[in-house]
Amino acid sequence: MARLVMKFGGTSVANIERIRNVARHVKREVDAGHQVAVVVSAMSGVTNQLVAYCKEASALHDAREYDAVVASGEQVTSGLLAIVLQDMGIEARSWQGWQIPLKTDRQHGAARIMEIDGEFLTSRIAGGQVAVIAGFQGIAPDNRIATLGRGGSDTSAVAIAAAIKADRCDIYTDVDGVYTTDPRMVPKARRLEKIAFEEMLEMASLGAKVLQVRSVELAMVKKVRTFVRSSFDDPAAVGVDQNGNPPGTLICDEDEIVETQVVTGIAYSKDEAQVSLRNVADKPGVAAAVFGPLADAGINVDMIVQNTSADGSTTDITFTVPNADHDRARAVLDAAMAKIGATNVQSSGDVVKVSVIGIGMRSHAGVAAQCFQALASKGINIRAITTSEIKISVLIDAAYAELAVRTLHSVYGLDKH
Amino acid sequence: MARLVMKFGGTSVANIERIRNVARHVKREVDAGHQVAVVVSAMSGVTNQLVAYCKEASALHDAREYDAVVASGEQVTSGLLAIVLQDMGIEARSWQGWQIPLKTDRQHGAARIMEIDGEFLTSRIAGGQVAVIAGFQGIAPDNRIATLGRGGSDTSAVAIAAAIKADRCDIYTDVDGVYTTDPRMVPKARRLEKIAFEEMLEMASLGAKVLQVRSVELAMVKKVRTFVRSSFDDPAAVGVDQNGNPPGTLICDEDEIVETQVVTGIAYSKDEAQVSLRNVADKPGVAAAVFGPLADAGINVDMIVQNTSADGSTTDITFTVPNADHDRARAVLDAAMAKIGATNVQSSGDVVKVSVIGIGMRSHAGVAAQCFQALASKGINIRAITTSEIKISVLIDAAYAELAVRTLHSVYGLDKH
Repeated sequence: MARLVMKFGGTSVANIERIRNVARHVKREVDAGHQVAVVVSAMSGVTNQLVAYCKEASALHDAREYDAVVASGEQVTSGLLAIVLQDMGIEARSWQGWQIPLKTDRQHGAARIMEIDGEFLTSRIAGGQVAVIAGFQGIAPDNRIATLGRGGSDTSAVAIAAAIKADRCDIYTDVDGVYTTDPRMVPKARRLEKIAFEEMLEMASLGAKVLQVRSVELAMVKKVRTFVRSSFDDPAAVGVDQNGNPPGTLICDEDEIVETQVVTGIAYSKDEAQVSLRNVADKPGVAAAVFGPLADAGINVDMIVQNTSADGSTTDITFTVPNADHDRARAVLDAAMAKIGATNVQSSGDVVKVSVIGIGMRSHAGVAAQCFQALASKGINIRAITTSEIKISVLIDAAYAELAVRTLHSVYGLDKH
Repeated sequence: MARLVMKFGGTSVANIERIRNVARHVKREVDAGHQVAVVVSAMSGVTNQLVAYCKEASALHDAREYDAVVASGEQVTSGLLAIVLQDMGIEARSWQGWQIPLKTDRQHGAARIMEIDGEFLTSRIAGGQVAVIAGFQGIAPDNRIATLGRGGSDTSAVAIAAAIKADRCDIYTDVDGVYTTDPRMVPKARRLEKIAFEEMLEMASLGAKVLQVRSVELAMVKKVRTFVRSSFDDPAAVGVDQNGNPPGTLICDEDEIVETQVVTGIAYSKDEAQVSLRNVADKPGVAAAVFGPLADAGINVDMIVQNTSADGSTTDITFTVPNADHDRARAVLDAAMAKIGATNVQSSGDVVKVSVIGIGMRSHAGVAAQCFQALASKGINIRAITTSEIKISVLIDAAYAELAVRTLHSVYGLDKH
């Protein structure tokens, strides 16, 4: 007997037929004797419609009222799944955030989970009843519904798994796991059987859209073993690969990964624009003068590179911003030009960030050198480099994205055998 | 300064543009210095969609889960109206049944209101904030959402008006008041300026679909002055008729109606089927044997007529059932035939019930005679008659419905002058 959280996203519950398929997945686990809590998103399209209503109602809508409106989508799905489960002879009951309660902070529209009454849920599922929980929401200290921000249902699921000390949190989505890289770009990409929390966090941050970054962070902190699998699998099939597991990827502690690869995956992000400030005075306070106005404008800055100047008078600063903020960043910087003392602002949206990720890097030298060499051998110029303990990111021309990813995927031995 | 409840139905909040129009009505009252609580229905079509989902999920869906699903419609509207009001510079906040709380009994899907925390709402609106309340729902003793049954938002509004001791409950709908009869059938129908609770109760029970019967009952018991008006009026117009009032009908205590008419209105209902049992044994227990099985089948019986038999051996029993239950009633009666000892069951769906309603009848003789005479003069045969203190109902052939209603409307002096 295990205790499981099963989470289903919007496309998995898009209509009653699909909800019935979801119920079959739940039935399989219940029939196996497991205790089950299910977390559901809104039916696909519903949240977008509700958000559009709020925007039409007022450009500057109150976040508390936005929450009351938008949270209704998950409420509907939770009730419908409970009905379908009951129809299959499975005891089930829906729960909203305010009923559990799942307490959040006061940040309506982007709330963080503060506390979950795990004992309440545990007592419910211990009796064999499936708890169907509306994802993406809780109750704030003002006794009003608060939502966790887009994609918050993944976070709900992981937080609930931690609260009820679940053996595993199964995330059912429209892909069957986490791949060594994007399989649409590299047909040789392999599905990973396991990936460490830290690696998944980098993958998610760098564009692999399987899981919300926040939910991976939470899973890492709370050590929630999280299994990503497809909701479109045959619900009756338990154990279909050589290890008796269904296809999917387990996100877990690195201790659980017996054979660590040096490099686990290659991620890329096209959502980048590069900005270079030429001939900036090399003196204290310059970085603050550049990045202060950008932060004030709510623009996230990434990959900051600043070289020491040759003569100690001026330097170049290069960084990336999200492509969506490119024009706004230009406007902010142009306005701040005089203060910065830069004579020249260059920027380009035609770049891509490619990242090599692997926990094994920590104990292996030469991984970065191998990357630079491989790209050089293909004539790919590197515009900027940033590294962390388990990641190397390079910024290159967008035209070389596919070539770079395929080359690195092959160089680090990730191609399908 | 008055304290008002304003209730808006589904067609009045069908989209954001209409919600904005609703907000203008609210703004007018707030600007006039009134304290306002608003009760809203779901956007038109939404509840039907949600009910259809539940039915598709399971023919025998759990009422508690049905409530969680269906109640979401009003939740959305309440949040959206609060946003639009705020956008107009009016302080507003949405409230769900569980937040107030508005407590119901355990009858999920058709719950009755047990208790409303009027003090909470009063303290909110006393500070000048508009309370926007999701209609049609409350919270049951099991801490779950309970809905009041279709059309329950009218009942919510009246109950809230009673709880906060409102001066008036304004029901905004898609017609501009209560008419002496259906204006689509009789162009000479007049809008009533006032109508007594008891009369309105008869009108609503007999097919005038302006208000839910339950809400009228509640208004009568709690003495809530209820004003029916159109939400499609110009929201800026305060006082447009000769008395300085907007067009509409006030449902109030009969004491408030200075000049009582003998007859206030003519109602009709086509949703009737007539059943006649011929040659039924005239002995104790026969009525129970007829109506017991019908009650067991959940079929409402109306207009029961039984004559004393001439020779004391057999009699005829005639009654009406809702047209929707006609076939089912036939099946039930055919099965019970032997027990009843009736030799012949006749039934027809081609009938209409026409009713003459007026509190003035209590003190005026001859109202019934006038009715029968008028119908006879037009050659209309009466199949059955029932009367109450303030009502005379006759069952006639459906083909004569319009002629009968027009004739009676004219006979009792209700035609527009």
